[in-house]
Amino acid sequence: MPPKDVFLAEALAEAAKGRDEGGIPIGSVLVRGGVIIGRGHNRRVQDGSVIHHAEMNCLENAGRLAPGIYREATLYTTLSPCSMCAGAAALFGVKKVVIGENRTFEMSEDFLRSKGIEVEVADDAECYKILQDFIKDHPEVWDEDIGGH
Amino acid sequence: MPPKDVFLAEALAEAAKGRDEGGIPIGSVLVRGGVIIGRGHNRRVQDGSVIHHAEMNCLENAGRLAPGIYREATLYTTLSPCSMCAGAAALFGVKKVVIGENRTFEMSEDFLRSKGIEVEVADDAECYKILQDFIKDHPEVWDEDIGGH
Repeated sequence: MPPKDVFLAEALAEAAKGRDEGGIPIGSVLVRGGVIIGRGHNRRVQDGSVIHHAEMNCLENAGRLAPGIYREATLYTTLSPCSMCAGAAALFGVKKVVIGENRTFEMSEDFLRSKGIEVEVADDAECYKILQDFIKDHPEVWDEDIGGH
Repeated sequence: MPPKDVFLAEALAEAAKGRDEGGIPIGSVLVRGGVIIGRGHNRRVQDGSVIHHAEMNCLENAGRLAPGIYREATLYTTLSPCSMCAGAAALFGVKKVVIGENRTFEMSEDFLRSKGIEVEVADDAECYKILQDFIKDHPEVWDEDIGGH
């Protein structure tokens, strides 16, 4: 069943969109004041992009925002962020990061906390399964996406 | 006069391209085996992008690469990288980062070193001047680009 958190469920819906396009199924939404102000998913396969991880694609789609907006925003992501995505969260200074799962990959949660960003891990079974199904079929694409880490 | 390092001079040429387009003048090149394999500049103004900092645009333009390629590459940038760009350098595991100047901004050099990435700061007068000239005229665009830091 889908995540209980409605915004994490929306991030998972983005991951499913990516899967349906043949891409790496990781999704993200940016939320402020109970409203989704950005959403996106990993675009490596679809666009040949190395920087459009889900969180980056979501932040890009949210557009240019005044710094204060980010400080009131929560970034939801189906997978624990890599150092690039965590670095973006820290640069813009989001208030909180909600993570679907960190069993597949974990790199930057201590970094986020060290920057004063609240971190919550849902350990959601669907977020885990959708990515594991992809990695089973395309281990080399996954390895490339995380730079061989 | 331009930087003595030919690759830093190419990064500065990218910054000048950005300036001539009305954008934030920060440029970057990715070099492997003495050959430029990617180049780019900040695209906030030109594309309304929040993630296309110079280093990110350069990495994106280099395209999808096998993880081993990055490990032999040096990322040149006219300005010291923010946490997003440094996080990308760490994700892909570049060997070295050469920085034009870090007087305008410095956020992530210790982070890069902690990830085993060699860091060299040129303290180049032209890299500094081209950005300072922009900030003088557009302080609010600069503030937005670095998330109010």
